[in-house]
Amino acid sequence: MGGDNAPTATLAAARTIQASGRADLLLVGPESTVAGQGFDYVAATEVVAMDDKPGRIMREKPDSSMRIAVQQVLDGKAGGAVSAGNTGALMAIGLFTLGRLPGIDRPALGGVFPTREGRTLLIDAGANADVKPAYLQQFAIMGSVYMERIFGVPNPRVGLLNVGHEKGKGNQVTQEAYGLIKASGLNFAGNIEGKDVPEGAVDVVVCDGFTGNVIAKLSEGLAGVLGGWIREEIRKERLAPIGALLLKPAFDRVRKRLAYADYGGCAPLFGLNGLVVKAHGRADANALEYAIGLAAQAVEQDLVGRLNEALAGIAER
Amino acid sequence: MGGDNAPTATLAAARTIQASGRADLLLVGPESTVAGQGFDYVAATEVVAMDDKPGRIMREKPDSSMRIAVQQVLDGKAGGAVSAGNTGALMAIGLFTLGRLPGIDRPALGGVFPTREGRTLLIDAGANADVKPAYLQQFAIMGSVYMERIFGVPNPRVGLLNVGHEKGKGNQVTQEAYGLIKASGLNFAGNIEGKDVPEGAVDVVVCDGFTGNVIAKLSEGLAGVLGGWIREEIRKERLAPIGALLLKPAFDRVRKRLAYADYGGCAPLFGLNGLVVKAHGRADANALEYAIGLAAQAVEQDLVGRLNEALAGIAER
Repeated sequence: MGGDNAPTATLAAARTIQASGRADLLLVGPESTVAGQGFDYVAATEVVAMDDKPGRIMREKPDSSMRIAVQQVLDGKAGGAVSAGNTGALMAIGLFTLGRLPGIDRPALGGVFPTREGRTLLIDAGANADVKPAYLQQFAIMGSVYMERIFGVPNPRVGLLNVGHEKGKGNQVTQEAYGLIKASGLNFAGNIEGKDVPEGAVDVVVCDGFTGNVIAKLSEGLAGVLGGWIREEIRKERLAPIGALLLKPAFDRVRKRLAYADYGGCAPLFGLNGLVVKAHGRADANALEYAIGLAAQAVEQDLVGRLNEALAGIAER
Repeated sequence: MGGDNAPTATLAAARTIQASGRADLLLVGPESTVAGQGFDYVAATEVVAMDDKPGRIMREKPDSSMRIAVQQVLDGKAGGAVSAGNTGALMAIGLFTLGRLPGIDRPALGGVFPTREGRTLLIDAGANADVKPAYLQQFAIMGSVYMERIFGVPNPRVGLLNVGHEKGKGNQVTQEAYGLIKASGLNFAGNIEGKDVPEGAVDVVVCDGFTGNVIAKLSEGLAGVLGGWIREEIRKERLAPIGALLLKPAFDRVRKRLAYADYGGCAPLFGLNGLVVKAHGRADANALEYAIGLAAQAVEQDLVGRLNEALAGIAER
């Protein structure tokens, strides 16, 4: 029931996935929506709204489709839960229902962003506005496992987002986190700067959730403004419409590369003791299909188990 | 002597400014460079390098052209100093030589960035990786005075960069800063998000120097990657080169709008008790001319005096 396009897009995505045999689906939602659609389902009497307060969601809507979906993971009836709804509420429900992995202080959001020639994971993309150095170490470990298992990147390069490349740069948190991440046995590329993110200098960008949130939203805004400028300047030229026509296929491909960001907004909630995948609130049927496929892949790869192992390895050091 | 293009570009910019009568110039640098150029000058035996450590610059190079230029401001022989050199060293020299304005805990860097239809000042653009709420209030006041006096924006809208629009969002620092800025008598637009920066939702974006540094460098990187994608996709089309030719004037104008960022990297060091303008290290003769013109305008507008008044007004509240 979550996201701007539910339940139409959700049902369409579910049908495509079911038909492809990539996953067995269990729909959770109001009986009137999920019954008779040709899927197994669990009925819920309540739905989480975008303006519901995360801190109160467990108490105020105990029978929400979101909570019941996550409960299926705890009960072993589903390998993972997927939602495009209220991110804060999903995190709160995930934390309350599944708890944290051992060694995790605070779960994080992830975002996969397109880079010049590939993609990079931003972690934390917005869950924790205030962090401690140890959280950043935990984000680094989880990000590395994720890029290796889900994106097949061997020995992912991990960078600590900072204001300069030299060791010793940064605020108090990043200065301390540097040594912790370096001691984690990861492929640590050291400090990276803002421009290194789109350039694709690393596979995992580690940062606090305040900076991560700003980066994600700024990137979206910048791409929109730049696109607007190009359209505006093209309209001013007499012959430009012909040029624009000739360039249309090229522009379409650029747009497609950018649109990856919408898919990239889709990632597991990192650090929960169970798989919960958050799809973008604006996800259409294709993006939701991607989200469900991602969850299926994470189950096959035993992502949560792998994260657990990697975190245990650090605890032993 | 500062910046990638000194002294050739610096001398060229100085000549243009001198010829236009917009400012009387006093060159500071090695005698062999500044003598016989048709300007008043002060000779210096040392030059600050990009890798000089800001914390040691006063002791290690007491006779640097940078220090002597700032000294002219203290001595009343210049209304302001302009440099495209080592930013940290310039800040250290400015702080040691001129001191802070009353009411300022930490000076800040500013950066003026292009937005969809105008421009916005980012403050702090990178001086203070760790801040306290009161610093953000001081940045807000200085940013508002600057945009009003130098860019002629009546009653500038001031936004606090945050992870959501609602009051109460953010990290501990922004949560506390919200009330302080609101109580400052500015035209406070409340919290803004990353995407509001390029959209131009406000005239002044207040943030800590860590986030400001990341934003400035990320924007530069993103624009470069997007431009690279467009070029790459155009090369793939058989007829696209013709289209690109037809669109060249439009693309050139987009590039020019973006290039404003290079000029925008130019701003005073905010909070010093005297005028010091930092030009971008990559500044060419045109950008240096802009920097000197900006300094002249700041002198005419008595920017430092206005900042002082505005800060005193807050202290009285």
